[in-house]
Amino acid sequence: MRYHEFIAEGDKIVKELIFSDYQITQLYATSAWIKKNCNILPGYLKPVKLSLEELRSISHQVTPNQVLAVVKIPGKKELHSPENQLTLLIDNLQDPGNLGTIIRTAEWFGIKNIICSEDTVDIYNPKVIQATMGSFCRVETYYTNLTDYLKNCIDKIPVYGSYLHGQNCFNLNFEKNGILVIGNESKGISPENEKFITTKVTIPAYEKEQFKKPDSLNASAAASILMALIRMNDL
Amino acid sequence: MRYHEFIAEGDKIVKELIFSDYQITQLYATSAWIKKNCNILPGYLKPVKLSLEELRSISHQVTPNQVLAVVKIPGKKELHSPENQLTLLIDNLQDPGNLGTIIRTAEWFGIKNIICSEDTVDIYNPKVIQATMGSFCRVETYYTNLTDYLKNCIDKIPVYGSYLHGQNCFNLNFEKNGILVIGNESKGISPENEKFITTKVTIPAYEKEQFKKPDSLNASAAASILMALIRMNDL
Repeated sequence: MRYHEFIAEGDKIVKELIFSDYQITQLYATSAWIKKNCNILPGYLKPVKLSLEELRSISHQVTPNQVLAVVKIPGKKELHSPENQLTLLIDNLQDPGNLGTIIRTAEWFGIKNIICSEDTVDIYNPKVIQATMGSFCRVETYYTNLTDYLKNCIDKIPVYGSYLHGQNCFNLNFEKNGILVIGNESKGISPENEKFITTKVTIPAYEKEQFKKPDSLNASAAASILMALIRMNDL
Repeated sequence: MRYHEFIAEGDKIVKELIFSDYQITQLYATSAWIKKNCNILPGYLKPVKLSLEELRSISHQVTPNQVLAVVKIPGKKELHSPENQLTLLIDNLQDPGNLGTIIRTAEWFGIKNIICSEDTVDIYNPKVIQATMGSFCRVETYYTNLTDYLKNCIDKIPVYGSYLHGQNCFNLNFEKNGILVIGNESKGISPENEKFITTKVTIPAYEKEQFKKPDSLNASAAASILMALIRMNDL
């Protein structure tokens, strides 16, 4: 964050960045990758040739990639209005893999805007960027005070929140345009945001006599299932 | 693997292990944790007191835990028959977080048996163990030749497989008892197993004119949605 830049790795994500509005400030790649992709590289970008071993030493990933980009973090964007669309709100999610997977699934289900609480893991954490598989280029993600944001939504739009003891999500008729709030991995949705939830929803566990009920679902698994259910009549 | 042992960390998972059939060979914990939990520790187990800093140095996780267990890997179990239940088959999945999350979601939806191809990531990889949040204690996971396993299922049971161009999963009436096959993160289900799939299913993306269709869903997100849809009438 110190230099207002982030790192993205791998052929797929770097190509998405090249064709996006993001500004790549430096590109490190193997000579093989540069040779193969010289026709798509913008003129101002002079890639630095590195061996796979050198790339491994600067990579955040276990398996080294042929290419790594240093990218400028864009300026703060104006918050969108949640009306007339489906919006995802992220309340204090901490695991970078979870946030990245949620952004990727959100894009799959046509969600264009994600609003995160200020204490949610940073989208420019390299593990978030990698887990999105490039979806962060097309889904807008904002960080703001979630309580203030929710205050402005009262009476305008349904606000669904994931809870352990809410209504069975498989029996609900979700509204097409609304807000879905996903909470922290262990604490769920913060108490100060609970009063804005208009419908508490639950993904019930399969409880037959031979099964002991497990504690919870992973936050990104729960988010994926709920996004699928909200969209299913339009798919 | 050299010592036929694996590592599990954190209060929740270690407690699950203590109350399971797994055999803990060594326990490292802070004195605070030991004091709080001495009443549940089996007599044969003499925990080694470590500071949080020392635990951090032997941990696989970013945030150090109060407790870390070394656990004996159990012997090979006999393969179960897939009839009269829902079974998950994992074909060459590589990401440990994905496998762990899938095991956790499978437990939530009452799946008792998961069969993995021999080239799937090892369940005893510490990242898999952590991502299951303890579900590996209650869901049986087997490694075998998946093609041979599927050969024995022909004409007995429906075999659902996740593909990019199959039937819309939201329009399908899934059978309660069947097999769901989840493929590799980038290559999907292996060609040699494709002929055993009786129904190819797809989670459609939301494609309206303003959306560019993304490439794919994360494997564990797709698995979570499909497990939820198969079980939804029983929840």
